[in-house]
Amino acid sequence: MSSELPNQLQGHAARPDRLERQLHFIRELDKLKSVSRRTSLIDRTRLENTAEHSWHLGTMAVTLAEYAPAGADIGRVVEMLLVHDVVEIDAGDTFAFDAAANLDKAERETKAADRLFGLLPDDDGRRIRALWDEFEEGETPTARFANALDRLQGLLMNDAPGDGGTWRIHGVTRSQVFARMAPIQSGAPGLWPVVVDAVERAIRHGHVRDDRV
Amino acid sequence: MSSELPNQLQGHAARPDRLERQLHFIRELDKLKSVSRRTSLIDRTRLENTAEHSWHLGTMAVTLAEYAPAGADIGRVVEMLLVHDVVEIDAGDTFAFDAAANLDKAERETKAADRLFGLLPDDDGRRIRALWDEFEEGETPTARFANALDRLQGLLMNDAPGDGGTWRIHGVTRSQVFARMAPIQSGAPGLWPVVVDAVERAIRHGHVRDDRV
Repeated sequence: MSSELPNQLQGHAARPDRLERQLHFIRELDKLKSVSRRTSLIDRTRLENTAEHSWHLGTMAVTLAEYAPAGADIGRVVEMLLVHDVVEIDAGDTFAFDAAANLDKAERETKAADRLFGLLPDDDGRRIRALWDEFEEGETPTARFANALDRLQGLLMNDAPGDGGTWRIHGVTRSQVFARMAPIQSGAPGLWPVVVDAVERAIRHGHVRDDRV
Repeated sequence: MSSELPNQLQGHAARPDRLERQLHFIRELDKLKSVSRRTSLIDRTRLENTAEHSWHLGTMAVTLAEYAPAGADIGRVVEMLLVHDVVEIDAGDTFAFDAAANLDKAERETKAADRLFGLLPDDDGRRIRALWDEFEEGETPTARFANALDRLQGLLMNDAPGDGGTWRIHGVTRSQVFARMAPIQSGAPGLWPVVVDAVERAIRHGHVRDDRV
């Protein structure tokens, strides 16, 4: 049936290696659905996986676009959030409050990025890896907004059902939460009151320890 | 701490209803992670859920952008794919080959769209619902490419491990698969050879019944 294709499209069919590499990458991405995070779904029925977490972040960018700092490109924020965690296919999810695991996180994730983005044709690999690099560097308004939403999602998942989520389970303190959430203050300052409210509520309910002296 | 915010951002903090409605929608979206589809993950460990399916589609749009028809807006394709199935929070996933369930699908999904997008501030609700409406109408190059990727993802999930997936389980025929995949031929014709190859392979392995007379 490929003989029925318009002429201008035969080019793709005639480059099976290129398309096969793209499809290989797409099939490989399926594994992100089996990478478990520490956060639970809001209904607390199970832990969240990184693929659905990334989807949630993409929808948050679409919904909360008005809170992006000047110069952020929302389309790029969405694309960045969709791929920002794919390195966890090889490197696993590193819990934010696990200091030991965070020591070699960058090394493990760089190696994963080399392998995963290397599955793609070179131009695609460079283009998509650039999204990941920009997120990791965290300097552009686009990356700062993406990072802010990543932090905010974790906070919403912990805060929503009123049980303290991973904060309570892991005995996290007020200063740890504020340090973790600081990127929101610079990357999406209009959303900062959400953090302040959630932390105050968590302290009031005894889910976050107030470590102010 | 909100008094430390730059003046131009106090506006958001002063509109708690607006932000609260946006956060309500975002929390509600979490439920899509518990909506089960008929397709299994490629490793066949469990069924796929609609949130991670939507994420996978978003990454496919980023990866396969070069196959989009003229006039498609890839940034909009990605946003559309992220929200195209959120109505399943209320309406559930309707299996493609279940003729009876498809009879009232449109009615159930429209009701779900009214409720879900109605959680948002009016302007956001209109903006995000427009993505869903455009996908459902399926007429723009953007919507046609999005729909093609949606169909292709199901095919890849069935084809990848070589066991026939839902095609084999539900005794699907060649003509049913081609009818289901037809939007790929018009919405992403450069990807049509992937369909032809997968169906030929599935027939050869006895996973899809060849119903040609």
